[in-house]
Formats: sequence, structure tokens, C-alpha cells
Amino acid sequence: MVKLTLPDQWLGEDLPGWEAERKTAADILHRVRGGEPEYAGDLGWFRTRTWAGDDTLERLTALGAEIRSKADVFVLIGVGGSNNAARSVIRALAPQGAEVVYTGNSLSPHALGSLLERLEGRQVYLNCIAKNFETLEPGAAFRVLRLWMERRYGPQEAAWRILCTGTPGSPLEELCTRRGYAFLPFPTDIGGRYSALSNVGLLPMAAAGVDIFRLADGARRMEALLGEAPPEENPALLYAAFRDYLSRRGCRVELLSSFEPRLRWFYKWWEQLFAESEGKDGKGIFPVTGEFSEELHSLGQFIQEGFPMLFETFLDIAQQGPGDSLVIPPDRGTGDGFDYLEGMDLWDIGRTAFAATRRAHGEHLPCAVLEIPRLEEESLGALFYFFQFACYLSCRLAGVNPFDQPGVEAYKRWMFQGLHKP
Amino acid sequence: MVKLTLPDQWLGEDLPGWEAERKTAADILHRVRGGEPEYAGDLGWFRTRTWAGDDTLERLTALGAEIRSKADVFVLIGVGGSNNAARSVIRALAPQGAEVVYTGNSLSPHALGSLLERLEGRQVYLNCIAKNFETLEPGAAFRVLRLWMERRYGPQEAAWRILCTGTPGSPLEELCTRRGYAFLPFPTDIGGRYSALSNVGLLPMAAAGVDIFRLADGARRMEALLGEAPPEENPALLYAAFRDYLSRRGCRVELLSSFEPRLRWFYKWWEQLFAESEGKDGKGIFPVTGEFSEELHSLGQFIQEGFPMLFETFLDIAQQGPGDSLVIPPDRGTGDGFDYLEGMDLWDIGRTAFAATRRAHGEHLPCAVLEIPRLEEESLGALFYFFQFACYLSCRLAGVNPFDQPGVEAYKRWMFQGLHKP
Repeated sequence: MVKLTLPDQWLGEDLPGWEAERKTAADILHRVRGGEPEYAGDLGWFRTRTWAGDDTLERLTALGAEIRSKADVFVLIGVGGSNNAARSVIRALAPQGAEVVYTGNSLSPHALGSLLERLEGRQVYLNCIAKNFETLEPGAAFRVLRLWMERRYGPQEAAWRILCTGTPGSPLEELCTRRGYAFLPFPTDIGGRYSALSNVGLLPMAAAGVDIFRLADGARRMEALLGEAPPEENPALLYAAFRDYLSRRGCRVELLSSFEPRLRWFYKWWEQLFAESEGKDGKGIFPVTGEFSEELHSLGQFIQEGFPMLFETFLDIAQQGPGDSLVIPPDRGTGDGFDYLEGMDLWDIGRTAFAATRRAHGEHLPCAVLEIPRLEEESLGALFYFFQFACYLSCRLAGVNPFDQPGVEAYKRWMFQGLHKP
Repeated sequence: MVKLTLPDQWLGEDLPGWEAERKTAADILHRVRGGEPEYAGDLGWFRTRTWAGDDTLERLTALGAEIRSKADVFVLIGVGGSNNAARSVIRALAPQGAEVVYTGNSLSPHALGSLLERLEGRQVYLNCIAKNFETLEPGAAFRVLRLWMERRYGPQEAAWRILCTGTPGSPLEELCTRRGYAFLPFPTDIGGRYSALSNVGLLPMAAAGVDIFRLADGARRMEALLGEAPPEENPALLYAAFRDYLSRRGCRVELLSSFEPRLRWFYKWWEQLFAESEGKDGKGIFPVTGEFSEELHSLGQFIQEGFPMLFETFLDIAQQGPGDSLVIPPDRGTGDGFDYLEGMDLWDIGRTAFAATRRAHGEHLPCAVLEIPRLEEESLGALFYFFQFACYLSCRLAGVNPFDQPGVEAYKRWMFQGLHKP
């Protein structure tokens, strides 16, 4: 379901060169499977059935269907871990449900004002997602939007059109009780960036018309695979060990690349997962992304010949899905120089470009390939679980806490002071 | 019009620490001003009136108006240097002209197929932009789209609805002559990534309704400023010297950040300019971007506490423009915890967040600020010129050719072989 291929060699060293990292990762994995207490309070994502069991999926699917029957637009108020997973799936699969729009993710008055204009004349549902309801962006946007909803629909109808996802007992839950909004729990044992497979990610996906059973199925199968595979065949372990090995040898930037433009928002989820988990104590690998083939024409030169600090992970989609075919037509005698493409499917041209890119980049930097069969719910669910698990192991290997983010408090302290927050 | 502020210190060293870099940059600048022959054949962008003089601006403005009168949609076929500049301006300013859509910038059959669907029932103009008409993506897309146009409009009407921008004497010009399409020159003395202020960038902008006179005016004023300022006050020289100084001390990743989400596509232009110009001979600074405040919630942790290899350049917009105001309303007694924001303009909250971020990041990495007065045509024109000039100087300081991109040939060689290109 996810197939990892690592390069055989790098800098002339064979795979045994990173035996040590693999052994350490296997030790960690062994302890985690044995139920070691470390980080136990943040491992709610580890068993997907805890927060994405069949009951939850059924309830959210029904809720999503109800929302779709009464809304053209589903407004997701959230930032970072509260919107990245849902947005990546919805933008990748473009399901035929409610249109999902995103706000509370910037401080731009223009962005929020434009959104309000777009909502005029359309039927709206609102979902405010905030684990810690102190974050400025969703807090400000939710205030503006719930007042807009009350003016638009009156307090009673607005109340059932607004749902919140937050920590039980938080000010957000109190607000919901007071105003009569539905309240869904944000798991207390899952941090934002690991919350794809919980109410946080799944409700917006269900409202958009994503089949969340299929998504969860992919994640569950990945959970089983990573839970059972012996260390030497465990792709998440091998990927984490590979990353650790490279980072200790100066590869401090990881480029996640794909030839599929619909993965643009998945990249954002992936960037947060790794940047926020690993980037601490002066450590970490900076995550960047390559939207190929477009960015071969912008970043390609640097990847091929620039300062050597990159390694690349290709996210490869092996098989065509619906709409993934377009044959180059004949246009004889025009002399445009592209007759050699006649009759070829653009899909196959892309496959050739991928193979060529992998080969060319592979001559200058370490390149791994992570292959998924198709761009579909199961694959995205599997990728969520795969990367969360691999990120967790990577952090353990680097010796940093995979679940905190102490550094983001620094600017908030000055900001709250500047805003005279009590 | 662009105000650069550099940090006073870094790693305990005062500014004189990069005296050497400034002196070298000043020497290069002196020689360029004196007309040194090196790279003369690629300096067509250096004097903006050569390719964006008043005659050109008038002609393109009239052509843009004609296109808008006959088209709902303007399809820009191009990749990299052929679309990044136009897209950054059109997406940032959202003018009220023809909708511009972008294709020929990926190998995705899904993307091209979806575009064809979106064109149904709408009036279309096509602009294929390709300096070297061997690039696969625009070549394939143009073939598909011009045949679509001929079926839709018949050969005669299609002919005046299609315009091409390419190198005089190239196969693209021959094709235009044969089919009766208008042909505009792609300057022979400007590489794609430096072509914002020429037919390449300006025609799509004009079709979209951008005031290209104002854009050119900003660039011209920047040209005058950089051409006349003494080295110690020349912002492009100081920026280039600062970058060179940092890169030699391990800062190999530059983060261009802004709190304005509308700059998203400008970042792409900037990334190509620096990655493709500097990333060669094992040198260069890898360009990445931070879409704040959203990405403070994903990359912020790494920026603040991760592996120390970053420096940051804030792109700051000092003044509000139209639509840049939204006051947080009262919602007394709700207890949402955000009463401290009541009556504040989101714009001012963003200013406070910027100041806080700059202060917090500045404690851990070198942070420069590049301030523009407003998000408007003049500022974007000035930024194009500023960054092109600074990039050119940066490359000279690093000792690499600012204008070639030999590394992108590597994958193309394997790809053309795989596609059996004659």
C-alpha cells in the first residue's frame, strides 16, 4: 500500500553504513510496542480505532450528510494542525460535497473580508476547530463569523449551523454550551499535527463528501503493517533511520517531491508535521517541497548542482485514476517540434519524466521513493499514519520530544504583550 | 519605495564584520555601471526602458484592453520564467479584467483536462509563452489547446485569439507565421527568470487589467535608485553582501516571510530567481518561504529552535490598502477570551504580530526587513527590479554565472531519451 525504496548507496557507502540507526530505531519500536510509558499521554493517534473507530466514522458520516443537505459552503475555522489534514485530503480528492473554505488561518483582514463576501447568498455551516482556544487567528475569525451567522440566520438557526471542535472543559466548550452550538472533542491525547484521524480532520472531510471509512481503512492497514513488520522490513522504521543517518552527515533539508499537483496541500500538512516535531534543541531537518514538473523549472537547478545539503523523497503515484489520461493529438505538418509525443498519454510522459528526474537527481543527492498505488482515500489515510509514525521515530532517534512545540511561544509572548492581553 | 533594514549584529559581530563583502559588491557594481563586457548579452533587463519602454507599455495596454473586450478567460501557457512574474502580480492584485488561468506548467493530464472543462461556454484568448520552444509542458499543452480553439472557433477566429511570445526565428515563430497567430518577441538578451518587465510578464498582466504603466514606473524608480545610490546606501548591494556574508557562515537557507497571504505566488517567482541563479557549482542559498501567520503554526517551531542554518528576510507591507481593514466586533458576556481584541483592526493586530515575530526570530537567526509602502503595482515593479539586481550581485559575489542553468539539462537528457525524441 506504501512502498518505500531507498538508494543502495550514498557517498560510496553501502546500506550497512546506517546499520546503527536502524538498530536504534528497532530498539525504540520494540519498547513502544511493549507499552513503554514515555510520551504515552500523546500517543492517542497510535491506535487509530481510539479516535477513528467505526462508531465515530458512522456518526461523522451521518453528520456530514446532514451538513451537505443544508449547506453549500462549509467554513473551516482553524490553523496548523486544525486545518492542514482536512485541507490536504479535500483539495487532493475534490469530492462532490459542500465547498469547504478555510479561514482563521491568517491575520489578513482582506482574506476574511473576501470570505464574507463569498458567503453572501449561500447556505453556510461553520466549524471552529481549536485545541487550545487561545490562538488569535481562529479566535478572531470565529467571533466575526458567528456574529455574521446570527445576523444572517437569527440565533436559533445559527446555533445548529455552528459546530466546534475543542478540548473538553475548555473556554470553547463553555461558549458552545452558552450559545447552543454542537461540541465535538479534540482528543486530549493527540497534538494538532497528529490529529488527521479524529474529529478534527474527519468532520470537515465528511462534510466535503470524502469517504472517511476508506480513509480510515488505509490508515488501519498501515497501522497493522507497521505494527507487525519485522524491523528490517518496516518502511517507517527504515525511512526514519535513513533520515537520521543523512541528517548526521549534513543533509539538513528534505525535499518532498511529486509530479502530482493535487498534492500541494498535503505538502503543507507534511511540512508542519516534521518542522514542528523535529525542529528543536538546535536539531531537525528542514522540510521543503517540490511541485513537479513545475518546480523542476525553478528549483531544479539548485537540486541538481547547488550547495549539497538536500536529500529528496519522491512521493510517487503508480497508477492512473479517473481523469488521469489525456492523449497528445496529431497536428501533422505544423512543425511544432512535438510530433514525437503524438499518441502518447500525458500520464505516461509524466512517468517518463519522473524516472528521468529520479535518475538525474540520484546522481547528486540521496533520493528515496515512497510509492502509493493511486491518489485516493486509502492512500492518503495510509500516508497520514505512515508519516506520523515515521516522524515519531525520527524524533526519538534525534533525541527530541516529538509532541511539544516550545519555540512557538516566543513570538506569542511579545505579541500578547503588544496587544495588552490580560 | 523599498526600505531595507539589516540587523546591527549577528553572532556578536558588528556590521563591519561584512565590510569585505560590501567592498567586493561595490567593485562589481562600479564595473557594471562602467559597462564591463561580462554577461552583457544577458543584461537586457538592466535598463527597464529597453523592453518596457513607453511605446511597449502603450501597445500592450491597448492589446490587453482588446483582449478583455473579447475574452472572459485568458489562458497563459508557460512554465517557470514564462509565468511566475505575471502570476505573482495578477494573484496579488486581483484586477478586474479577464480571468487568467495557467497551464503548460505541469505534466498532469488531470490539470489540463479540468482546464478544458472550465473553458466550456466561455470566451477565450490563448497566450503561449516559451523562450525555447523545446520545453515539454508548454509544447504539449499548446498543441492540445490550439486544436481545441480551432474546433471551438474555426481556424480564422482561433488565429486572432492566439498569441505567442517567443524567441524571434524560433520554431514557435515559424508556427505562428504558418497559422496566422500574432507573435511577440521574448527578449533575446533576457533569461526567463529576469523577464517580468517585458512582453513575457506584461502582456498577461495587461490582459488581466493590471496597470502596467504603474508597474513599470515602480521598476524604473528602483532602477534609478540602485543606479545612483552610493554603495553604502544601495539597498540591493547591502542585501547581496549580507546574504553572501551569511552564506559563508553556514546560513544556507533563506526564508522570505510575509504576513500578507496575497504574496503566495510572488514567492514562487522569487524562489526561481534565486534557486536557479545561485544554485550551481556546489554553491547557493536555498530559497524557502513563510506564509505568515499561517506558517508560524507549522514552520515557526523550527525557525525559532531548529538546526541553525536559516536566515530570514521579512517582506513587510507598511500601509493599509483597499480592503485591508476589519474591526473585531464586541461580543460581551460570551467569555470567549478574546475581549481584549474588541475594537482593534485586524490590520493592526497583524502589525503587532509582525513586530513580535521579528523580535522573537531575531533572537535566534539573522533577520532582515524589506519594507514596501503598499501592496500595489509600483511596489511589485520595484521588487522585481530590486531582487533581480540583488540576485545578479549575489551571484557575482558567490562567483557563479547569474544567467545560466546547466543543471536542468540533466533530467531532460534522460527524459528525451525515454520519450525517443529525435
